[in-house]
Amino acid sequence: MRTVFIHGERDIRVTEVAEPALLTGPDASGRDAIVRVVASCVCGSDLWAYRGIRPTERPHGMGHEFIGVVEQVGSAVTTVRAGDFVIAPFYVCCGTCANCRNGWTVHCLNGGFWGTPIKGEGVSDAAQSDRVRVPLADGTLVVVPGGQPADDLIPGLLTLADVLPTGHHAAVSGGVTQGSTVAVVGDGAVGLCAIIAAKRLGAERIVAMSRHADRQALARRFGATDVVAERGDEGIAKLKEMFGGIGPDVVLECVGTKESMDQALRSARPGGQIGFVGVPAGGPELPVETMFRTNVGVRGGVAPVRDYIEELLPEALDGRLESGLVFDTEMPLSEAAAAYAAMDERRAVKVLLRPGQA
Amino acid sequence: MRTVFIHGERDIRVTEVAEPALLTGPDASGRDAIVRVVASCVCGSDLWAYRGIRPTERPHGMGHEFIGVVEQVGSAVTTVRAGDFVIAPFYVCCGTCANCRNGWTVHCLNGGFWGTPIKGEGVSDAAQSDRVRVPLADGTLVVVPGGQPADDLIPGLLTLADVLPTGHHAAVSGGVTQGSTVAVVGDGAVGLCAIIAAKRLGAERIVAMSRHADRQALARRFGATDVVAERGDEGIAKLKEMFGGIGPDVVLECVGTKESMDQALRSARPGGQIGFVGVPAGGPELPVETMFRTNVGVRGGVAPVRDYIEELLPEALDGRLESGLVFDTEMPLSEAAAAYAAMDERRAVKVLLRPGQA
Repeated sequence: MRTVFIHGERDIRVTEVAEPALLTGPDASGRDAIVRVVASCVCGSDLWAYRGIRPTERPHGMGHEFIGVVEQVGSAVTTVRAGDFVIAPFYVCCGTCANCRNGWTVHCLNGGFWGTPIKGEGVSDAAQSDRVRVPLADGTLVVVPGGQPADDLIPGLLTLADVLPTGHHAAVSGGVTQGSTVAVVGDGAVGLCAIIAAKRLGAERIVAMSRHADRQALARRFGATDVVAERGDEGIAKLKEMFGGIGPDVVLECVGTKESMDQALRSARPGGQIGFVGVPAGGPELPVETMFRTNVGVRGGVAPVRDYIEELLPEALDGRLESGLVFDTEMPLSEAAAAYAAMDERRAVKVLLRPGQA
Repeated sequence: MRTVFIHGERDIRVTEVAEPALLTGPDASGRDAIVRVVASCVCGSDLWAYRGIRPTERPHGMGHEFIGVVEQVGSAVTTVRAGDFVIAPFYVCCGTCANCRNGWTVHCLNGGFWGTPIKGEGVSDAAQSDRVRVPLADGTLVVVPGGQPADDLIPGLLTLADVLPTGHHAAVSGGVTQGSTVAVVGDGAVGLCAIIAAKRLGAERIVAMSRHADRQALARRFGATDVVAERGDEGIAKLKEMFGGIGPDVVLECVGTKESMDQALRSARPGGQIGFVGVPAGGPELPVETMFRTNVGVRGGVAPVRDYIEELLPEALDGRLESGLVFDTEMPLSEAAAAYAAMDERRAVKVLLRPGQA
């Protein structure tokens, strides 16, 4: 089968590898499953490696978002069966440890990320592949009721693997509630999904910070009531002016740079809150004295996607959530290198990869 | 009348100054009041100047916590009358601006701290004095129902000016709720009040981090279920061990040093929250990558004390809240220098100053 490897800066190669197989032998827990990938995709955070911001020390498999059909399950798997259509969050989790029980499956004490060793369960496969071996399948996979969904639902269901629940996590971490005023920093797929989430949680006014006409249009379709194209001091001044001279209640930081976090922190009103999900690309450090003086709280991080999927799934299935529109480009897996380039050059918001179209 | 001045490091002098008077003249707003101080006190944050950590550039009045009796009010004051017994929060606020309306009076757009100029309202007096002119009296002062309270209620009422609602702010910012597990870093007056607040909000288990027998005893009386004397890595390991290997839900940071914040951040469980109210003594910066990886949120700052006083007052008046016990020492105002020294040397948790006992 094929899987996507990165070899270094801007060096993406689709490579033939051995088919994955359930672990066997006396030490095998029987808790894994083999999933045939129906769709995977490229994440904004994959670009840190692609751009060389995070150096690639040795070639490794890429991708952490996929949906697909279960082909085989290990002997100890109880909640997932061959033929099930499943969504995988961007990590492996057991569902039973202290952190999983607390609703923080992303901090599972027994799990880990795709393409990494899982304690006692072998190495999980990367998601930009034809097939994936899923360790701890009961804890990790969410079964979509009703079997294989209609083709037009595929993009929306794939957003449940990461970007939609990550946007939701930004909004939850920011404390968005009925009547909140919200600004969203970042107009990538996650920022756009954060708009969907903020609207869904009852935000009264949602400002998209965006300078791109196509993304502005999508932001408005998703629920943004206002668009601010200015950045830095000008953007902050505009937000203050829009919200009684003091700024919005909540700012959702969906980028991960020093500049975006700084803008978020300086935009929120006194007593406001930053919900952040942008993967920090080396820092920044947060100025605790500023936070003390303003009572602006900061909360967020790597999203506990698995804990949110079941809440969001019904609305994705009945078409109420339009998050699938963040996939503005679709390519066969064989063209993964072009997919990375399109996102790097911002010609695409997010690229969906279909292994089937080899 | 007398007021307490700082002239430099460890140089506290009780000084005779002119009696305060209501502002008069064509520009006077008539919104001020004169209050005879019944009790004031020394705050842990006053020690930053006393110890020279915050340099004293020119001599200035000290103190920001007081309760007393209103002697005169300006012509525009409507909610406070001569003879009323009042609690002053540690700042002046208007009660009507956008931040005050949001419940963030400490960020009042028209107010400020004691001993500083208030826009268009003259300079407010410092609180370690015989009398204080209170600008924006309607917004600032809270009237205690029933007139002059019994003498044994004075310490408890004085804690409403700062330390009790500040401890409450730590607990609120940390998201303490029914069943929370909580660790409190800092066994000063604010840390001890944070224990009271956490218990009041329903925390199931409260760990006081303290190495002093007298403070440990007070912590237990206030509701601490456990005491941990270890600090740094050992203290963190102990907390993790006590709470399922992952740590408590909430850590209340009531000190303000780099070490205490670091300890707090590394103690909370994944997805937990830091409520912080320790005045940062020059930093620290918060490691956003750690926060991202652990989903531990950080929220807090200068407490909106005025917004909490009315909620806490009934329980202070009926004796349910024992926060007055943080005053383990009482001195006449004339001995203010000794009061600072006692707190600096940790011979006293917090010193109450009575102007009456000249």
